[in-house]
Amino acid sequence: MKNASTAALLLAAAAFTTATTLHAETQAAKPVHGEYKDWSTLSVSHRLDKQLVRTILGNDVAIKAARAGNTKPWPDGTVFAKVGWKEKTHPNWPQAVVPGEFAGAEAMVKDSKKFAETGGWGFGHWEGDKLVMNDKEKSATCFACHTPMKDNDYVYTVPVLQ
Amino acid sequence: MKNASTAALLLAAAAFTTATTLHAETQAAKPVHGEYKDWSTLSVSHRLDKQLVRTILGNDVAIKAARAGNTKPWPDGTVFAKVGWKEKTHPNWPQAVVPGEFAGAEAMVKDSKKFAETGGWGFGHWEGDKLVMNDKEKSATCFACHTPMKDNDYVYTVPVLQ
Repeated sequence: MKNASTAALLLAAAAFTTATTLHAETQAAKPVHGEYKDWSTLSVSHRLDKQLVRTILGNDVAIKAARAGNTKPWPDGTVFAKVGWKEKTHPNWPQAVVPGEFAGAEAMVKDSKKFAETGGWGFGHWEGDKLVMNDKEKSATCFACHTPMKDNDYVYTVPVLQ
Repeated sequence: MKNASTAALLLAAAAFTTATTLHAETQAAKPVHGEYKDWSTLSVSHRLDKQLVRTILGNDVAIKAARAGNTKPWPDGTVFAKVGWKEKTHPNWPQAVVPGEFAGAEAMVKDSKKFAETGGWGFGHWEGDKLVMNDKEKSATCFACHTPMKDNDYVYTVPVLQ
């Protein structure tokens, strides 16, 4: 009986592990997205250097500013979500590059006082549904790549869906 | 006096023409978009065959269905907006393909009875903010390209921002 019980326990444990693994796989295939998932679109891009396809979304402040042409500078309270996926060839339409694995969602947050050292922009990313801002050092690295766009308030994105 | 009046009129006419032209150019640069502009995102794509970058948006019925995994088939009332722009190299970041000229917004509308002959899907496009459905002949042409996706309810798009 002891052996049978042990076997039953082992089986149960194995079943539990399999179920947990399957659940984890399902979660991995369907990542948790942040507040940005219902934001409106500013633009899209295909970053050949990073092999990413992206959508660039804006919060209400950003969308209102874009539609009013009030983007030089973007107002305080503006948040962009730059959501990226690894590029993938559509299995049924090889001439279409479509999203593969989720690569992450980056944030740009405008606060001209708080982020004065980096052009008024704070840089961060979402971990699931939580927005995590970078420390000063990492933000400075992000900002360095945006300096060529100084005349456009350090922003590469040109809003196209207004 | 007559000559002076004529000259003044010609100048006024020229100024009016210039103003009209400028206005038309401004309109061309900033197209009118339809109801879809505030819809949430289902996916994005880069169509190499058509040199288009696109975002694929969904109305409330579509987004709710996507998040519930209720897409085989998509429910009646689903509307997709496939919004495209001519691909363009970002002038300050040559490794980024970004939207150029607006190329149009296509629609797929699910009504399993009304569009029974084309898999339950009606095909159309927005003219400014007006949704115009295609006639049966044109819809059949659209549908023909979607038949390889029969097992996915004739839809190429896989929702990724859920």
